[in-house]
Formats: sequence, structure tokens, C-alpha cells
Amino acid sequence: MKLYSYYRSSASFRVRIALAWKGLDYDYVPVHLLKDGGQQFSAEYRALNPASLVPALQDEGRVLTQSLAIIEYLEETHPQPPLLPGDAAGRARVRSLALSIACEIHPLNNLRVLGYLAKTLGASEEQKNAWYRHWVETGLGTVEAMLAGDPRTGRYCHGETPTLADVLLVPQIFNAQRFDCRLDHVPTVMRIHAQCMTLPAFAGAVPAVQPDAE
Amino acid sequence: MKLYSYYRSSASFRVRIALAWKGLDYDYVPVHLLKDGGQQFSAEYRALNPASLVPALQDEGRVLTQSLAIIEYLEETHPQPPLLPGDAAGRARVRSLALSIACEIHPLNNLRVLGYLAKTLGASEEQKNAWYRHWVETGLGTVEAMLAGDPRTGRYCHGETPTLADVLLVPQIFNAQRFDCRLDHVPTVMRIHAQCMTLPAFAGAVPAVQPDAE
Repeated sequence: MKLYSYYRSSASFRVRIALAWKGLDYDYVPVHLLKDGGQQFSAEYRALNPASLVPALQDEGRVLTQSLAIIEYLEETHPQPPLLPGDAAGRARVRSLALSIACEIHPLNNLRVLGYLAKTLGASEEQKNAWYRHWVETGLGTVEAMLAGDPRTGRYCHGETPTLADVLLVPQIFNAQRFDCRLDHVPTVMRIHAQCMTLPAFAGAVPAVQPDAE
Repeated sequence: MKLYSYYRSSASFRVRIALAWKGLDYDYVPVHLLKDGGQQFSAEYRALNPASLVPALQDEGRVLTQSLAIIEYLEETHPQPPLLPGDAAGRARVRSLALSIACEIHPLNNLRVLGYLAKTLGASEEQKNAWYRHWVETGLGTVEAMLAGDPRTGRYCHGETPTLADVLLVPQIFNAQRFDCRLDHVPTVMRIHAQCMTLPAFAGAVPAVQPDAE
């Protein structure tokens, strides 16, 4: 397998965790989102992924895109160790937690959105950072409420082993910390984040230790 | 089952299509996103769904949230007729198309984001509409490239029967049309949209025919 990744991309970070958790080897192909006007916009990369987004995973000639779709694919093709619980209601809860990050927080804070705010709407650096923090802090507040109010929350987001929800949570916390977001209102989130970081699959997927880290 | 829905919410619209496609009966519980300062913020609704978002689906006492997680749950608990193809690579493609709408287009255009642009960043009506159109038009351009360039595209997004990708596509087109977005650059998307609208499951889920339509 080949993973097209950028070390700081949190969507790439998610897939790196899932691959490591399942013990799958892969070649790391760096795609620098800022160099050369964005290598994701090159003709070669667009032929692989018309969305010009990372990550993309190549497996047996197939190119898979969108981090959550890639992880569901890995779960189906390499079910052990699992990243989804065994019951439909549990899977729905884990997916809902994951989507609460993937749909409600992360899309508002990626590079192209911050670029539009600055370039087209003329937002100042301060306004851009306030925007970033607003969506992270309110979004994580929701995740905290979903976790703290549910007996199914354990050492991890759902029970005693990591799931897709934890795979989404950890990269989001890295982004939050990078932008100095408030995190004192989400103690359950932070407890689970610390727990995940004790696992090699999570610790080995962080931006700083990737081949393209700067 | 009980569906907490708002007629104009495209996330609710997605779940209405899936329920209808699978022939499942449900009680429609309207949650008005604008009345009373937003009924989704009421204490009762927050107890059901701390995210204060619609839809939520109540099934045998369980409350499920996030439209994609709800639809995956319906697919697992009521597999026939399916909304995902039978092969892992096909499922990955369908999920990637669905997430290209759910993560890359829709989150940028929901009410709370438009509210922040206007109230906190002082964007004019014109700037707000330009923002809306920008993400819809570029995002649907990506979906068009994914569809037009792939032999697996058929009468529907993936083959000859509707899938999760079509369930996401149709509500997004309704939003695009409501905001007068350009759609002449996405002929495959529009051909598939028209095809879906011939099906009662899609036609019966549109905002205008919901009990809370205004």
C-alpha cells in the first residue's frame, strides 16, 4: 500500500493511526500542501485524486480517498484488531462521535477555508485565529458532552479499546493545541487523548515523526 | 422509530430518503431551527442530542445522531434494499463520494456558519452568498470529476441502483438551487439528480412535502 500524506494534515494523521493499529505496512508518499503552490494541485496528483486533498491510499491499483472511507475500507479488509465495536448501536455511536469531528469541526479549519477568510473576506490574523478556536472549542464541547454523559465511555471513547472515534479525536487535539485553543472545558476528551498517546499506533503517527516533518 | 427533523435541513433530508428507500415507517417530530431562538437548543432536545443538530433518530429507546452514522445503522439493521454496494472497494468509493459532500461542502454552509460570518465577521449578504456558492460550486466540481472519470458511475453515482452517494447528492442539489448556484459545470451530477428524483423515496423526502414545511 502507498499512503499519500502530509505530516501536518489531520486527515492523513487519522489514516496513519488506523494503518499502524492494524499493523499494516505502507510506503509513505509526501504531498506538500504549501510547497510549489500546493503539490496536491499538480496534474499527477489530481489524476489520482480530483479533490486535491490528502490523504489518498493506493491498494492493489485502486485509489481510495476521504479518510473515513479509507478507514472503513481497512476495517472491512483487515478486521483485526477492530476499530468498530461489534454491535450496530455501538458502531452508530462511534461513527457519530467520529463524524462530530470530521463534519462539525475539521472542515471549518482546513487550509483552503482559512485562505478564503483571509484573501477573499479580508479577515485579519486575529479574526482567523478566533474563527479557528471558536469551532474547535464549541465542537469539542459537544464531543465532551457526548462522552461525559454516556456510560459506554470507558478508558477510550467507547469502552476499553480504541475505536474510530479515538482515531479522529487525537489529530483534532493536536490541531487544537497548535492553535492554542482552550481545552480546560473538555476533561474527558483530554483524559482519553492522554490514554491514546500511550499506544505506539497513536504515538508513531504524530506529525513530528513523519518522514516529511519539518 | 421517531425522526427529529427540520424540513429544510439537508442532513434530515438524507435520513428521510434512506428511511423511505428501506420502506421504514417513522413518526416525524419537527424541530424548528429558527423559531423560539432555535428549538434545537431547548433543554429537552439537548438531552437527546448534545450537539443541538438535526436529525436524531430514536429507535428502541436509543438515540442516534449524525446523518451518515444513522444511515450506516439503518443499512446494518435493515440491509434490504441496500444503500451500499457488495464489494469493499465499491463501498469505499460510495462512502468517499458521500463524504465529499458531507465533509467538504455541507459543513461550510450550515446556519451556524453563515450566522458567524454575518454576526462576528460582519460579512454582507452578498459576501455570505458568494461564500455559499463558492463551496458548493467548487465542491460539486470535485464530485463531477469523481463521477465523470470513473466507469463505475452508471444511471446513479455507483451503478444502476441508488446508494449512499445519491442519498447525499440530492439534498445538496436542493440547497444549491435554493441559493442560485451555478450548476452547468456538473452535467453528470445533474443527470443523476434528475434520475433520483423519479424515485418515490427521493421525491417523497423533499422539504416541500414534509409536515413542517412552510
